[in-house]
Amino acid sequence: MRRPLRQVRTNTPEPTDLHPAWLPPEVWAAIGARRTLICGQGLLIDTVQAEVEQAADRYGGTARRITAEADLPPADLVLALAADLPRPRPADPPPTDSKATVAEAAESKPAALTPTDSEAAGVWAALAGARAELATAEALGAEDFVVTRHHGVTVVVAGAPAGLLYGLFEVVRLGESAFGRGHRVRVCRPVMARRMLDHWDNVEVHPVMGQVERGYAGGSIFWREGGPRGDRDRVTAYARLLAACGINAVAVNNVNVHATEARLLTERLDDVAELADLLRPYGIGVHLAVSFAAPVVVGGLPTADPLDPAVRAWWAETTSRVYARIPDFGGYLVKADSEGQPGPFSYGRDHADGANLLAEALAPHGGVVRWRAFVYNHRQDWRDRSTDRARAAHDHFAPLDGRFRDNVIVQVKHGPIDFQTREPVSPVIAAMPHTRLAVEFQVTQEYTGQQRHVCYLAPWWSEVLGFRPWGDQGGTVAEVAAGGGGLVAVSNVGDDRFWTGHPLAQANLYAFGRLCWNPGLRPQAVLDEWIDLTFAPDRCADPDLLRRTLHEIMDDSWRSYERYTAPLGVGFMVRPGHHYGPDVDGYEYTPWGTYHFADRDGVGVDRTRATGTGFTGQYPAPWSEVYESVESCPDELLLFFHHVPYDHLLHSGRTVIQHIYDTHFDGVREVEAMCRRWEWLARLVDPAVHARVTERLREQLRCAREWRDQVNAYFHRKSGIPDAHGRTLH
Amino acid sequence: MRRPLRQVRTNTPEPTDLHPAWLPPEVWAAIGARRTLICGQGLLIDTVQAEVEQAADRYGGTARRITAEADLPPADLVLALAADLPRPRPADPPPTDSKATVAEAAESKPAALTPTDSEAAGVWAALAGARAELATAEALGAEDFVVTRHHGVTVVVAGAPAGLLYGLFEVVRLGESAFGRGHRVRVCRPVMARRMLDHWDNVEVHPVMGQVERGYAGGSIFWREGGPRGDRDRVTAYARLLAACGINAVAVNNVNVHATEARLLTERLDDVAELADLLRPYGIGVHLAVSFAAPVVVGGLPTADPLDPAVRAWWAETTSRVYARIPDFGGYLVKADSEGQPGPFSYGRDHADGANLLAEALAPHGGVVRWRAFVYNHRQDWRDRSTDRARAAHDHFAPLDGRFRDNVIVQVKHGPIDFQTREPVSPVIAAMPHTRLAVEFQVTQEYTGQQRHVCYLAPWWSEVLGFRPWGDQGGTVAEVAAGGGGLVAVSNVGDDRFWTGHPLAQANLYAFGRLCWNPGLRPQAVLDEWIDLTFAPDRCADPDLLRRTLHEIMDDSWRSYERYTAPLGVGFMVRPGHHYGPDVDGYEYTPWGTYHFADRDGVGVDRTRATGTGFTGQYPAPWSEVYESVESCPDELLLFFHHVPYDHLLHSGRTVIQHIYDTHFDGVREVEAMCRRWEWLARLVDPAVHARVTERLREQLRCAREWRDQVNAYFHRKSGIPDAHGRTLH
Repeated sequence: MRRPLRQVRTNTPEPTDLHPAWLPPEVWAAIGARRTLICGQGLLIDTVQAEVEQAADRYGGTARRITAEADLPPADLVLALAADLPRPRPADPPPTDSKATVAEAAESKPAALTPTDSEAAGVWAALAGARAELATAEALGAEDFVVTRHHGVTVVVAGAPAGLLYGLFEVVRLGESAFGRGHRVRVCRPVMARRMLDHWDNVEVHPVMGQVERGYAGGSIFWREGGPRGDRDRVTAYARLLAACGINAVAVNNVNVHATEARLLTERLDDVAELADLLRPYGIGVHLAVSFAAPVVVGGLPTADPLDPAVRAWWAETTSRVYARIPDFGGYLVKADSEGQPGPFSYGRDHADGANLLAEALAPHGGVVRWRAFVYNHRQDWRDRSTDRARAAHDHFAPLDGRFRDNVIVQVKHGPIDFQTREPVSPVIAAMPHTRLAVEFQVTQEYTGQQRHVCYLAPWWSEVLGFRPWGDQGGTVAEVAAGGGGLVAVSNVGDDRFWTGHPLAQANLYAFGRLCWNPGLRPQAVLDEWIDLTFAPDRCADPDLLRRTLHEIMDDSWRSYERYTAPLGVGFMVRPGHHYGPDVDGYEYTPWGTYHFADRDGVGVDRTRATGTGFTGQYPAPWSEVYESVESCPDELLLFFHHVPYDHLLHSGRTVIQHIYDTHFDGVREVEAMCRRWEWLARLVDPAVHARVTERLREQLRCAREWRDQVNAYFHRKSGIPDAHGRTLH
Repeated sequence: MRRPLRQVRTNTPEPTDLHPAWLPPEVWAAIGARRTLICGQGLLIDTVQAEVEQAADRYGGTARRITAEADLPPADLVLALAADLPRPRPADPPPTDSKATVAEAAESKPAALTPTDSEAAGVWAALAGARAELATAEALGAEDFVVTRHHGVTVVVAGAPAGLLYGLFEVVRLGESAFGRGHRVRVCRPVMARRMLDHWDNVEVHPVMGQVERGYAGGSIFWREGGPRGDRDRVTAYARLLAACGINAVAVNNVNVHATEARLLTERLDDVAELADLLRPYGIGVHLAVSFAAPVVVGGLPTADPLDPAVRAWWAETTSRVYARIPDFGGYLVKADSEGQPGPFSYGRDHADGANLLAEALAPHGGVVRWRAFVYNHRQDWRDRSTDRARAAHDHFAPLDGRFRDNVIVQVKHGPIDFQTREPVSPVIAAMPHTRLAVEFQVTQEYTGQQRHVCYLAPWWSEVLGFRPWGDQGGTVAEVAAGGGGLVAVSNVGDDRFWTGHPLAQANLYAFGRLCWNPGLRPQAVLDEWIDLTFAPDRCADPDLLRRTLHEIMDDSWRSYERYTAPLGVGFMVRPGHHYGPDVDGYEYTPWGTYHFADRDGVGVDRTRATGTGFTGQYPAPWSEVYESVESCPDELLLFFHHVPYDHLLHSGRTVIQHIYDTHFDGVREVEAMCRRWEWLARLVDPAVHARVTERLREQLRCAREWRDQVNAYFHRKSGIPDAHGRTLH
């Protein structure tokens, strides 16, 4: 019962071929060369079987689907649902461990097993071992799995089909080591139940924002020029990549919902259902970004007032229709009363009223509404220094804590402004203990180089996830998200052949998924995984050079980017509109609330309670005090919280102005080093990848020099202070 | 033989009606109520007759076309070609002046006429008078005419049909005064033979620039979404307005020639011919902007090298086809090797080679090539202070003087940069005595408020035209243009119902035409004409208030705009891309060559020979010395030529920084006054006009305040110097 898998062709890539990202054929070698048994029923188990069959076709192994009652054939790998785990018949007592092969002697030793010489008996023994270990473990959730190895057989047991799919991809990651000695028992559970990507993809090409808002990898993989793109293979390949890094939900359209996109909820629902059908076999649920004004703009009602009975009835009925068509539909995503999107404010209602309206409609079906906390006044007067965009989300949402229904997830950007290269953690994350919060990141590199710059973001996300908003005695951001709505990020993929424009930007997508699964993973370890999967270094001429060089280029690339762009947490300083490249004053006199207030004496935003906007008061202790004081505020956030003179001395021992000069010269030197290092890899990676990265690095270097020279010139012209090392300032 | 005139309906305008601009029905009252004789043959004489007939239909007069041999009927107005002027038969001796009516007694007195009492005899007498005056005047050129009045009859005599059309519009402008006592003999000749408007209209909507590049009045009147707009009435109405202010040529497409527009020259020539057919009856010749790469992009040749024989043959043949279709075709307009447009540099040739190639093809047909001198490096390095965009046109073109064919017109922007609010006169104008130069202005308000701000530009143009590049002993800019290629400007009209978005911006279009005809006209006198034609103030409740208030609002509006925008000739400081509103550093670190170099100590561009870019050396004496010295440089151009400290004392007695603060506060106050004054006119002008202007003034005031606050804040933050009067600086 071979199911055809719609997926990437696995031949040697031609220049126009779709890049396989972290699932090239080589990563299937260890599984594909072996004999695999698959036990269980269901759509996702069919996916597991099809994946293993395809690998076996290529590498000469076998893939057999068996039932719990069947005879056990010999096997090297068993992938089984716990409920479908074959039970030994009395006539077939499994062997004792003492007769296991020498190669397996070091493995764990379940007791009370009778010896035999047959291979099948070894499988029985391994299953028995797995069963024994399961008995001591906590009950397996829907996405959990256990990997064990006994008697030369690797056994993956999951509580439910999704867990088995994730278990399969774990074995892919482990490769040969899943079948070698010294393998430890691993119980794997995702830390976050909700691991989601938001696509800011438009159905119609938006006149300003294009097909994908803030997309830097070509068109949308879902939509093209007003309708479905119809590239089913590409969507399936995408679903497969997401499952392999742990993502289990996507929103298929932009949070800025325009006219055509508003109709995905109603007459264009079939387009959404078609995507759901393609994503479902990989355990990925579909969400839809909806317009709060939908009752008016698509429903023809005179109002969208959340307290209006007709509006409530419209949402209930519309939502029932969605579930009738897509039974496992995830829910709605809403950007309301933000940057021109409609919302409950028009009716004198608040965000809780708005979110609860949709939650009420979704509740009977088990869906959630994701309500973005990204609400601020984008028509601010730059002359008014008391209004502070950083305060806005907390001002709007903290007072509503406790008023949201259970199936509302308030989706909070990780920082108080907008995905800048450096921001403090949003105080909202610590302010809503009675609300399910999801923390939002941006994989698409809007403010971090737009996939023309190497900028491996996992270290940044890792810092945020490990931050303790209540100090050392309290939990982490990751713990807040894990106990609430999980993590979500804006996707960085498009119809580019490398998925992400910059081939190295694939690492950000992979890492985001992996950090959702386990926020405790070290960014460098995630990068190791990604390198091993993507580049198969062991097959190249110099594996060590390849691994080491990629680490040298990527590990610190976010900090390099920070060095040559806006300094000390002050943010923005980008070209307005497209947000690429430097423009120090670009947003300084605009209504967007993003200022640095540089003058001839100093720079930075005073957000203290003592003399500034009071934003520091939105934090609990100790951060409310740490950030308030110019002495204790961390250097990297100094200008976010304080306006200081250029000769202010940082903890680093340098003045602010000298820090600006130094980091900008350093950052460019680091990019120059990246470029040199990448050349070393010319014969170690796919020529097409090498050429694309080379082209992007050239642009990164050009752009980094612009940043250096413009930022340094700007502050030199303002401060009049020369560089201590006499370097050229224009 | 009534010819239907495709033109504006003359009923009371409905909100969607096209505004009649300076040809509302009222202006035809004086002619329309009288008896007019028209003598002559030709298309333009048919136009004259149709215009007079339409006026007569409305106001009860008559219009009769007569031949030179016909009996003379009684008449109040005779419009005649000199060659077709009726000659008296011996039997009909004209009356002597002594028997003329008392009302005519003050008029000029031709001698030796025999008295009779018949009215027809009066006409004979008037014609004899006109003939006598003509005999003493210089020969009439094709567009010249004479207006005389004898024996109660006003006689317009022209040498050719175009002159008679202009004579008719002169009588329209004169109104009743053309028929009253005290009328002087006027010999009218255009100072400029070439009086042209360039339309930067695209056939296809450009993804960034839209249907009209730098258009602020809606879509194009010629093109819509890839093809001809097909609105023949609108084009005819436009031709009529242009003829009434003296324009005699247009280029119908953008100088940036994109793919579709390149084909107007060949397979889409019919679209151009159709426009030519509509413009011809009003004496307006059609030019086409062409791509220098046309031999490649539409001709399929492998090269566009101007010295290649196949390229020369292609242009010759293509041009012959153009003339076969449009016999009175004006010629080509070319932007070459500028801002990404193709040109001769690609083939190692220079601008003379390029221009002469096209001139050779046009010469047999009497056409001209207009070759723009707007050539500069738009990929400049902002760090490089030695490269100076202001130098570029002179550097490129002055060495080529004498190398251009006779039918090449080098089209020079009036200033060395790009239509800023204030620039010095381009030194190119004084540098090419052996070349036909046209001087280019911008009626469309790209940098002067984009038809959202009142900015009457005639005072600025008048200053430029009256400038003497060689000092008091030499000629004016107007004289250079008059002896060369005349004047040309970028049009400001679109498919907006008021033609120009801002109804008061119509005055700029009118004034440009009138200054082409006679650059010596005072801007206030031109405005008087425009007000009398457009608003028919004598029919409103308070003519004086209307006239005075419009003068108060408009006369000084360009200087008000200058006050609240970029100071002291430094230019730019606009938002990049669309060029609307302030952004002091917007272009400071870009490749466009438009910098101000403000730092904490001072501001301005050092263009001196002594210490700067040497641009002052491109001027002849005395300006080379006047601009070189910070002492003699006029205040209004100080920052264009010099980098000075903020406390530098101007001739006005104020420091530079205080001048910046003062003018910005003053400029906004002046806009506030405009707004108040416009309210006084609420019941004196068409409500639709009043509403539109009110809406625009509101935006102008908002924007002027932004300019004031941003420019003042920027320089205050940089200089640290407070306002001497203690006003708020942000």
